[in-house]
Amino acid sequence: MSPEILSALGAIVGEERVLTDAESAARYGADWTRVHSPAPAAVVLPGSVEEVQELVRLAARQGLAVVPSGGRTGLSGGAVACRGELVLALDRMNAIDDFNPVERTVRCGAGVVTEQLQQFAEERELFYPVDFASAGSSQIGGNISTNAGGIKVIRHGMTRDWVAGLKLVTGTGELLDLNRGLVKNNAGYDLRQLVIGAEGTLGVVVEATMRLARPPKDPAVLVLGVPDMASIMDVLAAYQGRMDLQAFEFFSELALQKVVEHQGLQRPFDTPAAYYALLEFEQVSDADMEQAMALFEHCVEQGWVLDGVISQSVAQALSLWRLREDISETISRWTPYKNDISTTVSKVPAFLAEVESVVNGAYPDFEIVWFGHIGDGNVHLNVLKPDALPMAEFQQRCGEVSRWVFEIVQRYGGSVSAEHGVGLLKKDYLLYSRSALEVDLMRQIKRAFDPEGIMNPGKIFD
Amino acid sequence: MSPEILSALGAIVGEERVLTDAESAARYGADWTRVHSPAPAAVVLPGSVEEVQELVRLAARQGLAVVPSGGRTGLSGGAVACRGELVLALDRMNAIDDFNPVERTVRCGAGVVTEQLQQFAEERELFYPVDFASAGSSQIGGNISTNAGGIKVIRHGMTRDWVAGLKLVTGTGELLDLNRGLVKNNAGYDLRQLVIGAEGTLGVVVEATMRLARPPKDPAVLVLGVPDMASIMDVLAAYQGRMDLQAFEFFSELALQKVVEHQGLQRPFDTPAAYYALLEFEQVSDADMEQAMALFEHCVEQGWVLDGVISQSVAQALSLWRLREDISETISRWTPYKNDISTTVSKVPAFLAEVESVVNGAYPDFEIVWFGHIGDGNVHLNVLKPDALPMAEFQQRCGEVSRWVFEIVQRYGGSVSAEHGVGLLKKDYLLYSRSALEVDLMRQIKRAFDPEGIMNPGKIFD
Repeated sequence: MSPEILSALGAIVGEERVLTDAESAARYGADWTRVHSPAPAAVVLPGSVEEVQELVRLAARQGLAVVPSGGRTGLSGGAVACRGELVLALDRMNAIDDFNPVERTVRCGAGVVTEQLQQFAEERELFYPVDFASAGSSQIGGNISTNAGGIKVIRHGMTRDWVAGLKLVTGTGELLDLNRGLVKNNAGYDLRQLVIGAEGTLGVVVEATMRLARPPKDPAVLVLGVPDMASIMDVLAAYQGRMDLQAFEFFSELALQKVVEHQGLQRPFDTPAAYYALLEFEQVSDADMEQAMALFEHCVEQGWVLDGVISQSVAQALSLWRLREDISETISRWTPYKNDISTTVSKVPAFLAEVESVVNGAYPDFEIVWFGHIGDGNVHLNVLKPDALPMAEFQQRCGEVSRWVFEIVQRYGGSVSAEHGVGLLKKDYLLYSRSALEVDLMRQIKRAFDPEGIMNPGKIFD
Repeated sequence: MSPEILSALGAIVGEERVLTDAESAARYGADWTRVHSPAPAAVVLPGSVEEVQELVRLAARQGLAVVPSGGRTGLSGGAVACRGELVLALDRMNAIDDFNPVERTVRCGAGVVTEQLQQFAEERELFYPVDFASAGSSQIGGNISTNAGGIKVIRHGMTRDWVAGLKLVTGTGELLDLNRGLVKNNAGYDLRQLVIGAEGTLGVVVEATMRLARPPKDPAVLVLGVPDMASIMDVLAAYQGRMDLQAFEFFSELALQKVVEHQGLQRPFDTPAAYYALLEFEQVSDADMEQAMALFEHCVEQGWVLDGVISQSVAQALSLWRLREDISETISRWTPYKNDISTTVSKVPAFLAEVESVVNGAYPDFEIVWFGHIGDGNVHLNVLKPDALPMAEFQQRCGEVSRWVFEIVQRYGGSVSAEHGVGLLKKDYLLYSRSALEVDLMRQIKRAFDPEGIMNPGKIFD
């Protein structure tokens, strides 16, 4: 990057907020993926919407590629800068204000950290329900740009459902103020919805009005052992027909074994089962617990459930959650191949069986660990590296696995990215989930928002 | 329309399904608005997605404007054909199939009537929660195209929230299969969201996968008399902080007087009040009723509520609802000027006061009846025609009222169309709610989906 451009950037944000050192480049050029080497030309830290507009206008004039950057906890490379881009990091735009207790909305700068918003809500006896492992560092702007999901989607939806309004600086530096916090607004196309999940390719999300919810009552958690995946579907239908579940997760026996062994946890009960379902519901009154127990008995009678345990306290509910939540960290020692995919809910059992059959047919020594948000049709596939297999060879084989898995996803009408977005890592597979016509429409939409093609180029599609 | 084109249409759908008689033109060319005279060139009734594609391809080749047509219950002229268009009526595509009890989804042809879907759900112990006065004739395709709302939005959202997938025939006759029923799908822009609320300007919605919900428990209804609009906000915040409300509606004393007088209903209680709030909640257990009563006492103590009544049975709950639901029919004898607008919830009291002050300042003899979905910030403004005033003069004055109201809407950052869409009637006012840049982006998006500009031209924008 030329000294003239660096100096022009400095004139906008202040010289000390233009970073070109190697450490900053490494830090701001990478997300949680480790596939591409970070190589941004510079990092800028704007402090206001106006500064973001000026920076983008400068970039458009100079033909500089801009990578909007939040907490960089993404898992698809959406925030990676590896080709000399200008990283526009929103960290400083982290104010929460305009709290409105009647609307239950609050205005957040794009750089507000998820956990910061959760705590802000809690202090006001409210609740921000979108929650996931990276909540301590992910930012609202990034959550919106990837439409982040998490563990309570079955009840509370994705980030999309909590965005009452947002401000976007387009690729020409113009400011769009979309929906302004309205609940009902049927005056023309809802452009806000396009920006959510666009991974920064339409512009920079600079601010959002987020909704908050009534705080949940004490959670109760059930862990149920089931003989097969089909039974999980019966259990889901039975419970959802009578109760508002907060979560419906699953994991395999192998996942349970690993997590019990390595985290010093106890098995929930002795009866072995092929799979486990974890259900959470709000305990508003005794009637909820009675309903949950009656459904449990019904499921046992039908042969859908082999055994189960129900939490008797909030502490026990949280400790049962660890059986599911600690899986990811536990298996990280096997440097697993991971994939985040979805089908419609009822197709999951057949889908899992096909993937297992294909992968085990080719590589019988590969251990497959399944877990995920089964109530949403979203499964996380994890293949553990056999200790004896060299990393390079494992990665090469996993490349094959990806293609096989995505071919099955396509046949099932599923999604190659359920919640992690497309970014760099999945763009070669986008056509397994979206038609050529859809991708062409996306390109035309991008051109309307970003005629110079400077906004996070190369992400989602080329 | 030339005999050649009529014959080509007949070759696609069958001759008897191409209607050019005056009665059909009048019926299929109009919606519930009565501003424009229906004047379509022809009406066609396709029976399949393929026929719709062929019809649209023919229209694109011939440069024929196409008006997609559902139940035609719209209130903004979105389905009006008044300029020699081809009306493409989806009535025959009314099959419901592929019901899936685990997903709780069902596939609907665009011509499925809302009530038909509601009944289908009920027969399977499920619930389709989007409900409004025209449910007996509005169609799913039209509901999607206007993102229909209704009386349960505070709890269940708009039509948007229930569309798991949809198929669209674009302006070039190509078929888009968007989202395919997935709960989680972060693979590229969510084009489905653009189509919802696009009023047929991007293509013809031919099919949708709709979600169903757990059936609600018995409803309980509270009607509360409040001294002023500000108190309604306090009541809303108090109840929403503790309970999941199903509905939160309001109406003015004048609305109550009219409905009591003309529908033979009883006042809910004798204490007079400036406004009334109607709240509905699910009665899952006795705890809900206790919570509602405790909040009622709190609101009375605070001076936010003057008096109230709570239903003791489902029958009484339904009869209390009539106080709100019968208003629209009751006031129709005064051929009212109507407007459907929204602001953010907490701005409603000040907004109402400004509108009243401006309208009453200019026309002190105009009676204003307010009611609506206050929990969503959506108010219905109704100005009754004074008996002595000739209709033409009333309409001319109401044209002025519109402009004053929309100027206030703009200052409040509200929406010129909360739930009825823009269509023909509000397109001249779109810029009061959306920026010129937004409208320009909408136009570019329309060109991507409909390069020939044949899909419902002249609706939303020119």
